[in-house]
Amino acid sequence: MSMEVGELKGINQDLETLKHSLPQDPSLHASLDQLMSRVHHLTEVAKFSPSRREKVKDMSAEVVDSNPYSRLMALQRMGIVDNYEKIRGYSVAIVGIGGVGSVAAEMLTRCGIGRLLLYDYDKVELANMNRLFFRPEQVGMTKTDAAVQTLSDINPDVVLESYTLNIATVQGFETFMSSLKDKSFRPNKDGIGVDLVLSCVDNYEARMVVNQACNELNQTWMESGVSEDAVSGHIQLLIPGETACFACAPPLVVASGVDERTLKREGVCAASLPTTMGVVAGLLVQSTLKFLLKFGHVSPYLGYNSLKDYFPTMEMRPNPQCSNAACLERQKEYQLAQPARDAAAAAAKAKLEAEALSVDECPLHADNEWNISVVDDIELSTMDASSSDELPEGLARELPTADAHQNLSVARSADTSVEDLDDLRKQLEALNAD
Amino acid sequence: MSMEVGELKGINQDLETLKHSLPQDPSLHASLDQLMSRVHHLTEVAKFSPSRREKVKDMSAEVVDSNPYSRLMALQRMGIVDNYEKIRGYSVAIVGIGGVGSVAAEMLTRCGIGRLLLYDYDKVELANMNRLFFRPEQVGMTKTDAAVQTLSDINPDVVLESYTLNIATVQGFETFMSSLKDKSFRPNKDGIGVDLVLSCVDNYEARMVVNQACNELNQTWMESGVSEDAVSGHIQLLIPGETACFACAPPLVVASGVDERTLKREGVCAASLPTTMGVVAGLLVQSTLKFLLKFGHVSPYLGYNSLKDYFPTMEMRPNPQCSNAACLERQKEYQLAQPARDAAAAAAKAKLEAEALSVDECPLHADNEWNISVVDDIELSTMDASSSDELPEGLARELPTADAHQNLSVARSADTSVEDLDDLRKQLEALNAD
Repeated sequence: MSMEVGELKGINQDLETLKHSLPQDPSLHASLDQLMSRVHHLTEVAKFSPSRREKVKDMSAEVVDSNPYSRLMALQRMGIVDNYEKIRGYSVAIVGIGGVGSVAAEMLTRCGIGRLLLYDYDKVELANMNRLFFRPEQVGMTKTDAAVQTLSDINPDVVLESYTLNIATVQGFETFMSSLKDKSFRPNKDGIGVDLVLSCVDNYEARMVVNQACNELNQTWMESGVSEDAVSGHIQLLIPGETACFACAPPLVVASGVDERTLKREGVCAASLPTTMGVVAGLLVQSTLKFLLKFGHVSPYLGYNSLKDYFPTMEMRPNPQCSNAACLERQKEYQLAQPARDAAAAAAKAKLEAEALSVDECPLHADNEWNISVVDDIELSTMDASSSDELPEGLARELPTADAHQNLSVARSADTSVEDLDDLRKQLEALNAD
Repeated sequence: MSMEVGELKGINQDLETLKHSLPQDPSLHASLDQLMSRVHHLTEVAKFSPSRREKVKDMSAEVVDSNPYSRLMALQRMGIVDNYEKIRGYSVAIVGIGGVGSVAAEMLTRCGIGRLLLYDYDKVELANMNRLFFRPEQVGMTKTDAAVQTLSDINPDVVLESYTLNIATVQGFETFMSSLKDKSFRPNKDGIGVDLVLSCVDNYEARMVVNQACNELNQTWMESGVSEDAVSGHIQLLIPGETACFACAPPLVVASGVDERTLKREGVCAASLPTTMGVVAGLLVQSTLKFLLKFGHVSPYLGYNSLKDYFPTMEMRPNPQCSNAACLERQKEYQLAQPARDAAAAAAKAKLEAEALSVDECPLHADNEWNISVVDDIELSTMDASSSDELPEGLARELPTADAHQNLSVARSADTSVEDLDDLRKQLEALNAD
């Protein structure tokens, strides 16, 4: 995109050579001089075009204006993070580069994440300009290309891989799976080729595809969503076998119950706001940093209701009757590993107690007034995904429960008249209004 | 900044003309052809340079990809906002274009705010790249210039005014005040020239200056802040006379009590994260939209503790012993207007009850399961700014209370030895650890 100053200089040199080989004709020389001055002017203008910063080899903690990492490395000195530079070894996949995914990608890029994998098949439109990240001049580019352009300018240290594909197609899913499995960036670590998958898609089907992939690969992921009325959203942590998967329970929204299907009709579009999407992206990447760099508490579910400034949290256990076979496999593995986890927890507890005895006389750190180290005392409403009536206050189901959905399917498969459809709509509304 | 395609086309035309007036020399013609092809290539590259979108006269709700406002106008159809287009009549001042202010400015710009006034005296540094908004190519520019460059590209419909000055100097304060008072953008509205002031500064002194200006001008404002350890922040609504002003109570932070003064020492810098600052900017502009477009509930105070995903809210009443004379004046005016407010509230209640009687048979709207219309039933812990012991759980004072501060001043004015200073530090820590 940036104009090549060198290229323009080359043109001026060519003009210079041309001038010397020209016959002695004053009018020819005058027009050539004018031409050379135009090119020279253009060269000056081009010098102000975007120039990229150099890559840096190590993250420095030096406090100078020219250090892009000084304020991040300061997290160590503040006692928040043990070793910030570890972030360069991590690899994160972001599925969906829209209003949430693009901002999440920019935040991780500015934090100096090691490697980002980006998936989207959409193009940038002017209609996306009410959210952060994409610029009007990028209209018509694929979101993946536009994102790589912007992100590589912001931080050339991050390894960017982009995939312009729909993960919900057969071939797209295959490429998605193999890209996640590629371990060349982190060959010596456990698991697959990424440390975390972030789902930033805008529809149920794509979420189910991410869920399927992560269940199959035994890969921890985080889901995010913003309601169709733009004023609420949520993030959720999904650990295969340990927490509810996306198929274990109908998706939850902290929303006013607008049905996704009614929105996809022609001429009707969902509302969106840069604020809600920015907050959700911020919470998502904050959870990502806490998860990767091991500080603070990662909420299993965190909602955001912007009208009331209400942020519900909860835990969701897996559903033993989950319809996803890979989820059931992961649940079985998790159960089998329970004795090993218990033993490890007991050993850790014993070690902590032994240490506590030896440091008993030390005062508590003065800036620990929030008692942040003790994760267990956080009050969380815990729910069992299989029992449908236990939604915490203020949460509503985005889709009907599995049972209700079956009834719905039965009703749908029958010969439906306009009146039947109206009944159906009321039934859905009643379910949402519970 | 953008390369002129027209300029390059002009050069190529000149070359064409030159070619025709050249003598028949094959080598001359060959080198000229090569030159023309280089210029042609450059023209093609330049075509991808930033081009700005045209201004639009009215906000359209039309659902087409080319409409930058369709997803915002959809807020009306969703029943969230009565008249979104009103946003074009509003004027917002943002003081401090750093990690929070710049993102807030971008959000408001993308939302299509009428007019933005931007104040900062700092320059863009590579050390700012760990937060959203500024790009490495803008290093060395003033933050105001860089912001205007980016924001005018994103949305040419917004009227941008930038002031490269320090509001904490005598002349800076004068210009700040007169710019706020300029009513040319909204001549027919009550109050001064802006609808809201957002404080996004990073130090106590600048906050006190914004507080002074807004108390003098009787101007509602919102304050924002992020802790020096980068993992918590807050926003606060300040209505002169009605809520606590910034001088009524020592500033509160949802933080781990790092003292700002210890951070300003040479070689020590505060940590910052794009996540925390993005969340705080998102909450701040969400409150701004709710305040301007009159939807949802605007929290008087909203904290964000990212380690625990904890978001405390509370109200703060003004301090009748506030040290700020303009605040006391506003308090007196507010008290005098109490009977008028009571009468208006009673009339509104009577009207609502009369309406409720006539629509009694209508069912509640199905998507109102959050009872969002009733603002009064939100549970808020209310505190009196003048009584220092009533901090809600989880909140700590950033600075000592007024009384403690006086004791501190006494201690400071005495002949202080190193031991005294150490005592002082412990005293401060004890206050913060309460």
